[in-house]
Amino acid sequence: MAPSADRRVFFVGDSFVAGVGDPQHRGWVGRLAERAHRIGAPITAYSLGVRRDTSDDILRRWADEVAVRRAAGAQERLVVSFGVNDTTPSGCRTRVAAEHSVANLRTILGEAATAHLPVLVVGPPPVADRAQNRRIAALDERFRHTCAEARVPYVAVFAALRSEPGWMDEVSAGDGSHPAAAGYGLLADLVEPVWLEWLLAG
Amino acid sequence: MAPSADRRVFFVGDSFVAGVGDPQHRGWVGRLAERAHRIGAPITAYSLGVRRDTSDDILRRWADEVAVRRAAGAQERLVVSFGVNDTTPSGCRTRVAAEHSVANLRTILGEAATAHLPVLVVGPPPVADRAQNRRIAALDERFRHTCAEARVPYVAVFAALRSEPGWMDEVSAGDGSHPAAAGYGLLADLVEPVWLEWLLAG
Repeated sequence: MAPSADRRVFFVGDSFVAGVGDPQHRGWVGRLAERAHRIGAPITAYSLGVRRDTSDDILRRWADEVAVRRAAGAQERLVVSFGVNDTTPSGCRTRVAAEHSVANLRTILGEAATAHLPVLVVGPPPVADRAQNRRIAALDERFRHTCAEARVPYVAVFAALRSEPGWMDEVSAGDGSHPAAAGYGLLADLVEPVWLEWLLAG
Repeated sequence: MAPSADRRVFFVGDSFVAGVGDPQHRGWVGRLAERAHRIGAPITAYSLGVRRDTSDDILRRWADEVAVRRAAGAQERLVVSFGVNDTTPSGCRTRVAAEHSVANLRTILGEAATAHLPVLVVGPPPVADRAQNRRIAALDERFRHTCAEARVPYVAVFAALRSEPGWMDEVSAGDGSHPAAAGYGLLADLVEPVWLEWLLAG
């Protein structure tokens, strides 16, 4: 890979993609981008995470927002990460039913294939609420299956972060959902091996 | 201002807003966001800079992209910065004529007022091309007038960065347009006083 290549990675998702809670304003996305630079594969990282976005919201906007950031001749890739907001209670249900979240993910993967964008999916992380974490764990498992079927790499982070005091303590000390700098560093560490292999492939 | 307030700042613009060239992937936007956090006024920073975008491109997309990032009850503000790409040669003209760039800025300021978004405008910085810099300097002056008329704060950065080896050397050593980490730090330093006063007002 030529070091001067125009590599663009679109990170589409929710507040975790936006790095909410990180006083350094880098989140896991900025940390991964910095590490790509450090190994000689600099990227333009477009962080398109939006607070409170469910998979419904992301499905609606992702294609337009990515389209205006593409460029002829550039090497382009898509990272997708969502799910926590889908599992948030809304009345006696959740904001998005699990089977619908899966259908949304499947649609996005199909649209990305049509748009010739290689995709990496990062699973939803745990929050400070036990009941919601059960739903996130179940969704994480469904997303893993969906990605395996579509032959798209999937990084599950839920279980590792759930047993990681560095994540759970920062989330509890924060707003109950988002970590601070150290937590985002842990999330970046989990994604990094798959991320680097995927980024440098092809 | 309550420290727990939901403050969102939308940064709309070009590759300088995206922080292209910064190996730390923070750019001037990330540095300003970090400084806001450090003084106890944390923000959610949505960086909506797109490489190669002219004022025509930005006018077309800014309102939709900001709209899906707004939230009821949040304190919301808009930072706008563009101009360098407008002055790039295209055939025997430039990509956007200066009077049209000014009209685009005026339209965006009007739309922002209608959307009840306080605005701060950051002027275009110098690049490594002498002829283009003459056009950027002229546009910088027009933008300053336009913002004064609209009573919107404007931070001119061109002249200060043009005589700043820390900026010009990094730009020349890079791709001819973008600095690296130190240059973005200098740009953030220039914007910071106006930025903090504007952010904490109202």
